[in-house]
Amino acid sequence: MSGDRTEALAARVRAGERRALAQAITLVESARVDHREQAEALMNALLPASGGAQRLGITGVPGVGKSTFIEAFGLHLIAAGHRVAVLAVDPSSQRSGGSILGDKTRMQELARAEAAFIRPSPAGTSLGGVARRTREALLVCEAAGFDVVIVETVGVGQSETAVADMVDIFVLLLQPGGGDELQGFKRGIMELADLFVVTKADGELTAAAARAAAEYRGALQFLRPPSPHWRPPVLTCSALAGQGMAEIWEAVVAHRKALEAAKTAGGDELTDKRARQAKTWLWREVNESLLVALRAHPAVAARLPALEAEVTAGSLSPTVAARRLLAAFLGTESGGEG
Amino acid sequence: MSGDRTEALAARVRAGERRALAQAITLVESARVDHREQAEALMNALLPASGGAQRLGITGVPGVGKSTFIEAFGLHLIAAGHRVAVLAVDPSSQRSGGSILGDKTRMQELARAEAAFIRPSPAGTSLGGVARRTREALLVCEAAGFDVVIVETVGVGQSETAVADMVDIFVLLLQPGGGDELQGFKRGIMELADLFVVTKADGELTAAAARAAAEYRGALQFLRPPSPHWRPPVLTCSALAGQGMAEIWEAVVAHRKALEAAKTAGGDELTDKRARQAKTWLWREVNESLLVALRAHPAVAARLPALEAEVTAGSLSPTVAARRLLAAFLGTESGGEG
Repeated sequence: MSGDRTEALAARVRAGERRALAQAITLVESARVDHREQAEALMNALLPASGGAQRLGITGVPGVGKSTFIEAFGLHLIAAGHRVAVLAVDPSSQRSGGSILGDKTRMQELARAEAAFIRPSPAGTSLGGVARRTREALLVCEAAGFDVVIVETVGVGQSETAVADMVDIFVLLLQPGGGDELQGFKRGIMELADLFVVTKADGELTAAAARAAAEYRGALQFLRPPSPHWRPPVLTCSALAGQGMAEIWEAVVAHRKALEAAKTAGGDELTDKRARQAKTWLWREVNESLLVALRAHPAVAARLPALEAEVTAGSLSPTVAARRLLAAFLGTESGGEG
Repeated sequence: MSGDRTEALAARVRAGERRALAQAITLVESARVDHREQAEALMNALLPASGGAQRLGITGVPGVGKSTFIEAFGLHLIAAGHRVAVLAVDPSSQRSGGSILGDKTRMQELARAEAAFIRPSPAGTSLGGVARRTREALLVCEAAGFDVVIVETVGVGQSETAVADMVDIFVLLLQPGGGDELQGFKRGIMELADLFVVTKADGELTAAAARAAAEYRGALQFLRPPSPHWRPPVLTCSALAGQGMAEIWEAVVAHRKALEAAKTAGGDELTDKRARQAKTWLWREVNESLLVALRAHPAVAARLPALEAEVTAGSLSPTVAARRLLAAFLGTESGGEG
């Protein structure tokens, strides 16, 4: 694809052409080196048109009803005049090359809506790669005029932090159970959330959901809120009965207003948050690329297994091992060492 | 210091000579390049003699009574026949070059005990540096025959994670207050702790301390325990009345036994934990050294401010900026870019 064709694609994305949007996301998801360069040119062309959406991250343990919730919430937003894009970060799908959204029975109604765009998780070799491409797909959706972008993550491994670092508000879906059932959240995940939603608050689970919400409110007082200007609320909803969707959107809007109302040297807290996130992504990519380059270096690759084994066995100091790896990588090692 | 003298110092440390111990720690704390090399030789000589201590990390907010607790706990252990070393990681003391343990009024009685060794926080330029040197000082104390090493951290910034990554058991001291007073822990710190201790459970605070302990027990059910074989207990103590010290040490021993009883491919969970920690330190040091080298590179330093500003302003993609920084660092940039 030439520079002209990249520019043409960018123009079609900005015009909201659905096929161009899908094509642009396929390009940013591609792992091919020549595609990466075109993708970067495309991103630079689309960046000025991005930033206009409410960015939501949604996570929760398997079985909590993420897709059912997103379908109900998405349909509610569309009915209110919004245009909604749904993206997924799912590192577990990499093994099969499949996708959590690939299952055609999920979000059927939302998928058919003209004002919605659903994109399965990209296949990729590393979470870092998948998450980076999802972040770029989010910007592409914004440039295409979607005013709500939802990023879904299945809640395993490190994906939550990556998603929390690309959205304005991070929502944690909770099971309507009490006591032991509530236990065993991924470490640190509760402290990432700006909004808690107990699902399945209908039928015989209605009382259990209300109890769970109260218990979480109690537990939250032990955690530092993500922003000094926002105390994360705990809401309940029923995707089945279509209840609670309006209240959840109100909380999303209230969160945004609270951040925008907090004036800072950089403008307001939302602007600051997005700037911080961009910087975090820069250093995350620098870090990751440096480690990839280090591991790929022949002199490092030759020594790494033995050094790592000595360190874990406790027979070599990590400091000494680190210095040897670095010297091998940067070509500064002295002859007598190692 | 020649290799022979380093070997002689190592022998004196292993023989438990107090002055040699202090001298060895001064060497591993030094930032001088020639000292670093001697320190690495010393560490390699001492490593086979290390590993024999129960390693405890202790943290808590300012005012919770960390030094009072450590003095009472240390004296209790000494009376039971243990030899106790206390080290401190305090990044905030770097500014003044001082130390949280430099205050001579703290831990007076413990400091006078023959079976105790108290070492203030090293002055340093970065938390990474301070923490690494504290980790090495811990190994030196083990080689000198101390069977309990306590690492104290003041609980600001990133020091808790670094300390949790160098000890067998991480203890969080809590205030005997309820409700709002309990709030506002550093994010993620509760999930690092293997043991919770409410302090000042005496006089008019006795009931409040018991209440606080019960509330924390309730809150803990929302968090994933650090090990599947250990559910963190919440205890109370009074350093003033000397109460609770025996129970706390029993919990420390029970924790160790639980990890040792959990058999794994690598032996047991304690062995695995220490191996994992050593590997974490290796990669932490590699990472940190790589970033230091990157930032110090002239071509990177020349571009970094502008690139970072463009990324935070949202006018340049983090991916593109990261690629440019890496190309500048590794000398692979093409002429047309930049």
